[in-house]
Amino acid sequence: MQIEKRLHINVGESYDVIIGHGLLEKSGSLIRDVFSPRSCVIVTETNVAPLYLGTVQKSCEEAGFTVGCFTFPAGEENKNLATFGTILNALAEAHLTRKDFVIALGGGVCGDMTGFAAGCYMRGIPFVQIPTTVLSMVDSSVGGKCAVDLPQGKNLAGVFHQPSLVLCDMDALTTLPPEVFSDGCAEAIKTGILNGGELFDLLTEEPENRDFSQIIARCIAYKGMIVERDEKEMGERKLLNLGHTAGHAIEKCSDYGISHGQAVAIGTAMMCRAADKLAWSNEPLSDEVEEVLDRFGLPVITDYEPEELLEAALSDKKRSGKLTTIIMPEAIGHCTMREVTNDQLLDIFEAGWR
Amino acid sequence: MQIEKRLHINVGESYDVIIGHGLLEKSGSLIRDVFSPRSCVIVTETNVAPLYLGTVQKSCEEAGFTVGCFTFPAGEENKNLATFGTILNALAEAHLTRKDFVIALGGGVCGDMTGFAAGCYMRGIPFVQIPTTVLSMVDSSVGGKCAVDLPQGKNLAGVFHQPSLVLCDMDALTTLPPEVFSDGCAEAIKTGILNGGELFDLLTEEPENRDFSQIIARCIAYKGMIVERDEKEMGERKLLNLGHTAGHAIEKCSDYGISHGQAVAIGTAMMCRAADKLAWSNEPLSDEVEEVLDRFGLPVITDYEPEELLEAALSDKKRSGKLTTIIMPEAIGHCTMREVTNDQLLDIFEAGWR
Repeated sequence: MQIEKRLHINVGESYDVIIGHGLLEKSGSLIRDVFSPRSCVIVTETNVAPLYLGTVQKSCEEAGFTVGCFTFPAGEENKNLATFGTILNALAEAHLTRKDFVIALGGGVCGDMTGFAAGCYMRGIPFVQIPTTVLSMVDSSVGGKCAVDLPQGKNLAGVFHQPSLVLCDMDALTTLPPEVFSDGCAEAIKTGILNGGELFDLLTEEPENRDFSQIIARCIAYKGMIVERDEKEMGERKLLNLGHTAGHAIEKCSDYGISHGQAVAIGTAMMCRAADKLAWSNEPLSDEVEEVLDRFGLPVITDYEPEELLEAALSDKKRSGKLTTIIMPEAIGHCTMREVTNDQLLDIFEAGWR
Repeated sequence: MQIEKRLHINVGESYDVIIGHGLLEKSGSLIRDVFSPRSCVIVTETNVAPLYLGTVQKSCEEAGFTVGCFTFPAGEENKNLATFGTILNALAEAHLTRKDFVIALGGGVCGDMTGFAAGCYMRGIPFVQIPTTVLSMVDSSVGGKCAVDLPQGKNLAGVFHQPSLVLCDMDALTTLPPEVFSDGCAEAIKTGILNGGELFDLLTEEPENRDFSQIIARCIAYKGMIVERDEKEMGERKLLNLGHTAGHAIEKCSDYGISHGQAVAIGTAMMCRAADKLAWSNEPLSDEVEEVLDRFGLPVITDYEPEELLEAALSDKKRSGKLTTIIMPEAIGHCTMREVTNDQLLDIFEAGWR
């Protein structure tokens, strides 16, 4: 085991995020630093279970924990109340008490649902996140936003529930399909634009020189800082939605055939192009950002017309008079929030479209 | 409208509990003191809807709110994840945003489920409680404990979510079936034993002299004080479980044929008799407590043998070695917590049985 970085996040009861190699094999003893021996249930999904469940289970048992396991069917389409219910049933069948804990082993869907279930079981018991994708490491493993989809929309039911420990094992990323890998990189690049500085520089490196655990660590550090200041997304945390207004609209137009990461990549590129055209930025942003996205194998344009995107972006909203908060990239490392009307939003989509 | 009492509860973002007469007709304007015009959904159940939904809806509309309504089937058997899901769907169909709110109009089941749904919809939006039973006024409307049952046990999935306002309209109690009315009084009497003083004196009055809004107000004030000091039930809040260890066992033995209130009445009487026999109390408690319970039409004995009750009480627990926290009444107005072994718990049940 090699620990590259240990970050301390001061939200909720505060917790550590450990980034390194070989963490899965040692997960039990790392968790043992946080919890004395007690019961836990590892929740994972059908893609991850054959790869890593045995390793984590064995390590936790060796560390003295009484370990139960529950595997649900992989896929965003299962991120719903029905699967949430089966996880709760599994925790109850294992007779977990308020003093026990849950381990979420998998990608964003697993972390979201398991965190939500842990946040509701007996009105909230602790949970440990072991994210196994880039996306879940840089995005969903820090911040405590847990949710499932409702038929009416994504992530509509959930809670804020902070983990007690997050283990990011870089070795888990080696088994990711390339498109899943680059999907997660879209959120890392988005974070790079928000944070600027060394993180963005790391992202501009040639693929063969990339220090990926550094990238992950800096993304988490940035997100942790934002979440510490604004846990419940009342203000600053909205910055993390850079590229997401257009991105969500693209996902919706494609009926979720275009993945979240690809959609965010396009949405981020659109906002950078709009920034250049509408003179939000002092110096051109879009060429540099497009180059980085492209180098990570991510798309930067969409066929959906600006009007279609506007309609999709507004479909959640009840009245047409409402404003939308968009994130404006003014420079690498400097983004701002602005409330825009529907007409302004269309102008932005048009300016960013190519 | 006549406001008898306004209590301020300092938990979460802090909120008022208003106790009085004719509050339902004025609910809109009372809520208007807390929220500017926006959207809301009134969630209620099939017993309460024909009685009060129209009144509350009209009042809220007159106060300028955009009002949706959702009615679910009454009954504890519907306090489950399936009904919880239908409430969430109703909130989403009404396009509620994070700035809108939900109204729970009904008894404990309605408040529990609606509070849980409000606590999860978009990761938590505000809610207003309008309890319509004694039980929900004195017990579940204050404290923010919201939950549904799982097949494995009661109240196993939920959140802590504090209301933004609680309206206790004494007039709503006039339509309660007598057994539902006295059921709620069991929790009031339990609170009287914990608090002692004037609350207990009010409970010992002859029925024709009872000041019921005073009783409700003092029960809520006591519970509010406890919850302010221990929102998450880490310690002192457990005192509110007086009579509940035996009570839950009796409910379980009867397969929930004996109501919660009746079971708590018997459980409380058992603990007082045990207190007298095992010399926890300096002076006899049980005669006085039994007389009060009896005067409210509540039972004080059970046919289930102590051994049966012990088995039911322990059935939730995984290992037999665990301790149970019981609440010992040492005097009216003075109860304490103690951790007991299974053998000690059996002794207590035996001492309290008659």
